[in-house]
Amino acid sequence: MNAESIRKLFEQVRRGELTPDAGVDRLRHLPFEDLDFAKVDHHRALRQGYAEVIFGKGKTPDQVAKITRAMLSKKDSRHNILITRADKKIFTAVKRVGRAAVFHPLSGVIAIERSKEISGKGTILVVSAGTSDIPVAEEALLTARLMGNRVEHLYDVGVAGIHRLLEHRLRLTEARVIICIAGMEGALPSVVGGLVGVPVIAVPTSTGYGASFGGVAALLGMLNSCASNVTVVNIDNGFGAACVASCINRL
Amino acid sequence: MNAESIRKLFEQVRRGELTPDAGVDRLRHLPFEDLDFAKVDHHRALRQGYAEVIFGKGKTPDQVAKITRAMLSKKDSRHNILITRADKKIFTAVKRVGRAAVFHPLSGVIAIERSKEISGKGTILVVSAGTSDIPVAEEALLTARLMGNRVEHLYDVGVAGIHRLLEHRLRLTEARVIICIAGMEGALPSVVGGLVGVPVIAVPTSTGYGASFGGVAALLGMLNSCASNVTVVNIDNGFGAACVASCINRL
Amino acid sequence: MNAESIRKLFEQVRRGELTPDAGVDRLRHLPFEDLDFAKVDHHRALRQGYAEVIFGKGKTPDQVAKITRAMLSKKDSRHNILITRADKKIFTAVKRVGRAAVFHPLSGVIAIERSKEISGKGTILVVSAGTSDIPVAEEALLTARLMGNRVEHLYDVGVAGIHRLLEHRLRLTEARVIICIAGMEGALPSVVGGLVGVPVIAVPTSTGYGASFGGVAALLGMLNSCASNVTVVNIDNGFGAACVASCINRL
Amino acid sequence: MNAESIRKLFEQVRRGELTPDAGVDRLRHLPFEDLDFAKVDHHRALRQGYAEVIFGKGKTPDQVAKITRAMLSKKDSRHNILITRADKKIFTAVKRVGRAAVFHPLSGVIAIERSKEISGKGTILVVSAGTSDIPVAEEALLTARLMGNRVEHLYDVGVAGIHRLLEHRLRLTEARVIICIAGMEGALPSVVGGLVGVPVIAVPTSTGYGASFGGVAALLGMLNSCASNVTVVNIDNGFGAACVASCINRL
Amino acid sequence: MNAESIRKLFEQVRRGELTPDAGVDRLRHLPFEDLDFAKVDHHRALRQGYAEVIFGKGKTPDQVAKITRAMLSKKDSRHNILITRADKKIFTAVKRVGRAAVFHPLSGVIAIERSKEISGKGTILVVSAGTSDIPVAEEALLTARLMGNRVEHLYDVGVAGIHRLLEHRLRLTEARVIICIAGMEGALPSVVGGLVGVPVIAVPTSTGYGASFGGVAALLGMLNSCASNVTVVNIDNGFGAACVASCINRL
Amino acid sequence: MNAESIRKLFEQVRRGELTPDAGVDRLRHLPFEDLDFAKVDHHRALRQGYAEVIFGKGKTPDQVAKITRAMLSKKDSRHNILITRADKKIFTAVKRVGRAAVFHPLSGVIAIERSKEISGKGTILVVSAGTSDIPVAEEALLTARLMGNRVEHLYDVGVAGIHRLLEHRLRLTEARVIICIAGMEGALPSVVGGLVGVPVIAVPTSTGYGASFGGVAALLGMLNSCASNVTVVNIDNGFGAACVASCINRL
Amino acid sequence: MNAESIRKLFEQVRRGELTPDAGVDRLRHLPFEDLDFAKVDHHRALRQGYAEVIFGKGKTPDQVAKITRAMLSKKDSRHNILITRADKKIFTAVKRVGRAAVFHPLSGVIAIERSKEISGKGTILVVSAGTSDIPVAEEALLTARLMGNRVEHLYDVGVAGIHRLLEHRLRLTEARVIICIAGMEGALPSVVGGLVGVPVIAVPTSTGYGASFGGVAALLGMLNSCASNVTVVNIDNGFGAACVASCINRL
Amino acid sequence: MNAESIRKLFEQVRRGELTPDAGVDRLRHLPFEDLDFAKVDHHRALRQGYAEVIFGKGKTPDQVAKITRAMLSKKDSRHNILITRADKKIFTAVKRVGRAAVFHPLSGVIAIERSKEISGKGTILVVSAGTSDIPVAEEALLTARLMGNRVEHLYDVGVAGIHRLLEHRLRLTEARVIICIAGMEGALPSVVGGLVGVPVIAVPTSTGYGASFGGVAALLGMLNSCASNVTVVNIDNGFGAACVASCINRL
Repeated sequence: MNAESIRKLFEQVRRGELTPDAGVDRLRHLPFEDLDFAKVDHHRALRQGYAEVIFGKGKTPDQVAKITRAMLSKKDSRHNILITRADKKIFTAVKRVGRAAVFHPLSGVIAIERSKEISGKGTILVVSAGTSDIPVAEEALLTARLMGNRVEHLYDVGVAGIHRLLEHRLRLTEARVIICIAGMEGALPSVVGGLVGVPVIAVPTSTGYGASFGGVAALLGMLNSCASNVTVVNIDNGFGAACVASCINRL
Repeated sequence: MNAESIRKLFEQVRRGELTPDAGVDRLRHLPFEDLDFAKVDHHRALRQGYAEVIFGKGKTPDQVAKITRAMLSKKDSRHNILITRADKKIFTAVKRVGRAAVFHPLSGVIAIERSKEISGKGTILVVSAGTSDIPVAEEALLTARLMGNRVEHLYDVGVAGIHRLLEHRLRLTEARVIICIAGMEGALPSVVGGLVGVPVIAVPTSTGYGASFGGVAALLGMLNSCASNVTVVNIDNGFGAACVASCINRL
Repeated sequence: MNAESIRKLFEQVRRGELTPDAGVDRLRHLPFEDLDFAKVDHHRALRQGYAEVIFGKGKTPDQVAKITRAMLSKKDSRHNILITRADKKIFTAVKRVGRAAVFHPLSGVIAIERSKEISGKGTILVVSAGTSDIPVAEEALLTARLMGNRVEHLYDVGVAGIHRLLEHRLRLTEARVIICIAGMEGALPSVVGGLVGVPVIAVPTSTGYGASFGGVAALLGMLNSCASNVTVVNIDNGFGAACVASCINRL
Repeated sequence: MNAESIRKLFEQVRRGELTPDAGVDRLRHLPFEDLDFAKVDHHRALRQGYAEVIFGKGKTPDQVAKITRAMLSKKDSRHNILITRADKKIFTAVKRVGRAAVFHPLSGVIAIERSKEISGKGTILVVSAGTSDIPVAEEALLTARLMGNRVEHLYDVGVAGIHRLLEHRLRLTEARVIICIAGMEGALPSVVGGLVGVPVIAVPTSTGYGASFGGVAALLGMLNSCASNVTVVNIDNGFGAACVASCINRL
Repeated sequence: MNAESIRKLFEQVRRGELTPDAGVDRLRHLPFEDLDFAKVDHHRALRQGYAEVIFGKGKTPDQVAKITRAMLSKKDSRHNILITRADKKIFTAVKRVGRAAVFHPLSGVIAIERSKEISGKGTILVVSAGTSDIPVAEEALLTARLMGNRVEHLYDVGVAGIHRLLEHRLRLTEARVIICIAGMEGALPSVVGGLVGVPVIAVPTSTGYGASFGGVAALLGMLNSCASNVTVVNIDNGFGAACVASCINRL
Repeated sequence: MNAESIRKLFEQVRRGELTPDAGVDRLRHLPFEDLDFAKVDHHRALRQGYAEVIFGKGKTPDQVAKITRAMLSKKDSRHNILITRADKKIFTAVKRVGRAAVFHPLSGVIAIERSKEISGKGTILVVSAGTSDIPVAEEALLTARLMGNRVEHLYDVGVAGIHRLLEHRLRLTEARVIICIAGMEGALPSVVGGLVGVPVIAVPTSTGYGASFGGVAALLGMLNSCASNVTVVNIDNGFGAACVASCINRL
Repeated sequence: MNAESIRKLFEQVRRGELTPDAGVDRLRHLPFEDLDFAKVDHHRALRQGYAEVIFGKGKTPDQVAKITRAMLSKKDSRHNILITRADKKIFTAVKRVGRAAVFHPLSGVIAIERSKEISGKGTILVVSAGTSDIPVAEEALLTARLMGNRVEHLYDVGVAGIHRLLEHRLRLTEARVIICIAGMEGALPSVVGGLVGVPVIAVPTSTGYGASFGGVAALLGMLNSCASNVTVVNIDNGFGAACVASCINRL
Repeated sequence: MNAESIRKLFEQVRRGELTPDAGVDRLRHLPFEDLDFAKVDHHRALRQGYAEVIFGKGKTPDQVAKITRAMLSKKDSRHNILITRADKKIFTAVKRVGRAAVFHPLSGVIAIERSKEISGKGTILVVSAGTSDIPVAEEALLTARLMGNRVEHLYDVGVAGIHRLLEHRLRLTEARVIICIAGMEGALPSVVGGLVGVPVIAVPTSTGYGASFGGVAALLGMLNSCASNVTVVNIDNGFGAACVASCINRL
């Protein structure tokens, strides 16, 4: 379903061939394509303003490539395509169907950028606590950018050296939405949240060892944040944080 | 610190009595009042646009009353005052220092409403899955309203009777931010998130028994939501969800 | 032990060579074969109407092959043989003793199909939430089919795109038993359970990352399902779900 | 929606005033009554053949009484009404709107029995491991009976005295569905499942202490059952087990 | 065992009545008194420089009183006596055997102060994040003081209002040991640890709700602290933190 | 079933009235009495040499009293009767049917001692770490004594004052079986196990707070004991430890 | 330290060269050899009647070989040597210092058998539930045998086919100690424990998947066993179970 | 920032070009170097007396090498450089920028030792329970030494052979701070803590299997230690323990 087919739909309604309600319904729910193993939801981007996204983990390279091709074959769509949690094998398969695909090995993101349009109103700032959190931060950065947002980053400003964070307080206050990424004790969002008045999306990372329990310590820390403008997404979910931030940034 | 005192501050800067930097600093960090057992942060409301809030749990009635009095004694402030997780004993103590206080026993919220100004741009919709989630929903509703937002609610629309939710799809799409409250399997935010394009703040509740583990099942469900516009706050944290929603609604 | 040998047994009883009690006992408990490391229960199929099944994980290829041979050497049995959680090494060993063996690498199932008889009364529908759940779905599908059931599937109908599921509501209502497979938040069984009146066997999968804890989030979601016709089996246990479904479908 | 209104609906369809599809839709999704705090689903019983059920926990006595009155006011309905997880206060409130209400204090069930019709095809047998599991067993028994099933019970047959169970093997094999209730190590369903060919619904109970972790030990035991005809419901969920069993028993 | 008896011991050694080794042994291990239900270790104070301490929880009032009397009856000892986790009943019983006993209800500490001697070299600073952490902070303060240390406190300086903490940076740097008490996300020790060069003993508290899991979130946060001068004691263990701090402060 | 009835059984076999097999069967499996809510296993004592035992928790006073009466009515049995996890209400009900009943409130044990015969070969020593572990120790002591063993105890010998334990090394080495009870870190069994050559039954207790998690810390400590003669029973399970110890002591 | 050196010790005592106390001490505590990274306890075997044992996991091949050599160099000792949790690399290193070493790859045990003397009084029976439990069972079998016990085994008698276990009831009753090994729900020890009067050492295995959580389900099941003659060791700890069993079998 | 620049700073203050406060501030917070992916805190060593440290895990070899080069390029600094959790790849990269680097493969530590100055006042003793704990012990030893402390070690003195520990009691009492490392049940710190009067830093290790849960059992044991001079750091955190010990040893 592209601009052309949407126009046709509205013409049918104008000519009385469809009630407005039926039009709304068709617009809202029809356009997914059935590949049997996957039902590609071309419409989600339209419904939510997102880029088209494939979660790579748990899919075979062949499956990912087929879904990509289905997305690309909608020639009149200019949405960016984002494949997360991918690896080299998936990239090789995708590259064959989409030559413009670029692989970011640190975060495992494959991006097919077809539009550089900015639709978000302000800047999304990605703040991370330690160098080892950068893969997750990169996933968030790329996702937010491909979804049409201005993005900036501020890395390695963990709370045990609070002066490094305070040094950049101005940049914090200039952002419209903040994505705050931290492993270990996950304390960064509480401090950042207390310094700004905008929403802070906290992302715990699986960085750490021992009693970090693969990110659980950071997750719990963030859920219990004493700063009341903090919400949380899943461990290592840079993608999800960027989706929510993008969704807020369009309001 | 109110408009008046802020003006004075700027005049000092203009007259050269204060450097601009010092002005910024004073504005940002000074006004907390030291009661020894609590450092009342009169400034947070200004910094974050919030009502003034006291978390009642773990404080004695006397402590809560003293903090309330400190807030009320700033006569030129017209911020609403919200006391969460309170009980009858706390209410009795607060009532003595603030006659306008109203107690909502279901949610344990005490509200001192001093302003009905609406500062949020759209409507915050509070959706809850079951009747037993209403106490948390009420905490969210009252918080969002006292922070200056138009609020609506939609109760008892759990996913096992999906037609009850779909019946109200229009209301879902009219909201600017959605707070989605559910216990047990916590599946509601995923379904709601898929139906709308706005941010959904998910609140797991401790409703349920056995393997709900006091809300952990719902919390995990929400953190793993397959809808990418969903973020999560702590179990039963209706207050926090409303803070974030309010903070988004002002953007 | 097949129909023929059962008839002989009853004749012995009629002739007074065996008491009825002894007959019942022999029928119920005798026929297991002792390979020392395994006691092959040839009788379970008769007692429960199941195909003969070997759980491959934790057994050496040699052990699996020996058990398979013992099953195949009961020449008069026509039960299908199913080996779950197998890998290529096991398949190579099994292939040597049973040439009809077919390997399904996605699910790790080896099937030796000796009968296509349908003994289940209705259709078992396997519904899965995401593409990454397909390996488990395939295990369930193959198991149900080899146990003599008509099976159908419906894939990639997760709750965040509820219209994809509602589109197929008719197929849901036509099934006699539904196996519902989902990872992440595991919300699908609640929605499906609310739409139908038949039993729904929920299978959590280890799909996901972070706070999905290898399927625990989905498992807890399903155990707390607000739909009252939902029961749950172990994480990734497509086999077990199909056994129960088959067992219900014969009633 | 009762028999009368259903008839009218079909007449509309016959007269061509409604398409058959629209009729199906109306039948399936319309009839819930909005009490704001609860949306009473009068139709669920019709859709699923269940008694009408209220989950008492987390609702105020007043809320439960209002929902009960709404159910009773549908005078032409003869469905039994079941209130689970209730206490004396709820009973007092319910008794006022429904004089026929009977309270079972051991299990906390309130029953309003309006029909003794048997619609299940076989017998549901409730087996429990220890005397302390009886409250959960009673909830299952009452639920199954009020949903129109013949029910029997077999108590205190835990696996550490296996002869007590084997003594009743005949009764096990005569049931069409078995509900198997156990706390502590939760081993009973595995043994029972191995002795019969029908589905076994396992209910872990919170009986026990220490490392039983409120039923978690039994829950895990049952999820890992080596008998393949066993499925599991939530801890202490006698009600849910009976729903599923009843649903199977109508097939 | 007091100074007098120790002198006698050394005289025995000098006169050759005891080998030096035997003297050391007697000094180190003899003096515990056997009350059967408790072996009172009068010597621990001498060995570790501690006040004599009774852990009240899990002991009957009568048992606590008997142990107190045994301690007090060593008339020549001037050690302070500390009873932690006590309640009013225990206090009543203790008051009878030791009239100087004082009860601190917030923290449940009973103190019998017999000496005000300061033996610690510097100041121990007790820092706490929120008002609800004060009971644990008080236990730490009283313990440290009764063990002969100069103590100071700094309350309600949680990280979400970082300026409140930074305002008191000087006091942080003046302490020789810091006890840092926080519930919820437990982030305070990381920030404090980064600001000072002395050891920080972190105490998680059970303050909070939901995913704070009775202090587990704070505990994990502290164990994963990115500040390398932080160590951790058990949840709510203000007593233990003070013991360690006191032990360090004597070095 | 007592010695007399057993003799009669063997005479029936000798006279050919019963086959030997039938005799064995009757001996092994017959004598349980069906009270519906409980199947009293009069035979277990004979089969395992135990006293007759009722687990009080989760049973109503009336149920416990009825089971006790059934046990007492077997007039020719002289087995001791033990009711664990009982309270005052249960004791009142039991006292009515068995006047010899004695209640031990610390451990919640009710004992009806009908025989003082010693059947165990050596001494069972109950060692406990702290005063708060005494209730569990008492349950173990009473159980072991009523099951016919010589018992001794050694209390308050926790590992942080290792000299108190070493002082009693001789008593440790004189025991034939040791029951070792500890809460908190549960380290005592490892030290004791290293000092002796006999089996050590470790019992974790729920003593402690915070990260003791109701005995889980002690339980894990004991399961990971580096002393290889240590086995473990459930948290607070003094009864179970004494059963095993008694069972070993009869070998 | 062997018989010869012990005799010499006693002669020294008789001649008055050593006090009896000193003799006891030397006997009990002297003979460990300090390799710096390990303190080889040659005496433990004498103190506890064990074979000499090295826990291979976490040690380098070189370290294991050095400890083995130290053990072997005590030429007059005839104790068997057992290395558990070893792999091929360790075996290669050990083989170089001890040519008699034999590797059992299934269980990872290396055995150097120097004595076939039987010192246990009865038979230790190793019972296991499934074929995949055999590696743990083999560790137990080898350990028990090398520690001087008669051992037998009974494999693949899981509770879902209870007749396979009952078929061998006689062998169960003939054992003096039973080691009972099971993964998944860990129900076997409860059933076995109920059938015999001797101690049952339960070993949970990490066999299984999903909610078996690497053996936790089985561990919890066994800790909550309703059979009172069951104790538990760590997951997969076949070695420990055999140590305890051997220690009991010598009584 | 080196000695030279510090001198300049003080001169500016003396000349009145900077207030003393400003000097302090500049000293405390300025000197970190921004590599974008890492903000190298050259000042931490000065602020806390530590060696400069890089946590290798989660960083690419290239990142570690760049940070190392930045540290080394401060030519006038003589601080030792420590890279923890490194592997061979990282070492190869580091070796290129710092030829003096030495790799310790057991613990994964890379050390660049530029100073052998001792600044700690007493000896830090590293005690470990088993041979498999040595990697963590080595990390602690190297860290403590490079931070300027006299260090000693005592290995393989686990509590199940208590005589091996008691044999070295003197060395325990001679240390100023003790680092106590143990896996499995983690009991060693309690015993050691009871024998000395100085602070004991406990380090749980991930040594063990099954219910050790990767060090959780040891961690919980240590948090619940009944010795009150024990504090705890994260699992396997030999580095952190040495930091705290070093920090105490400078007091």
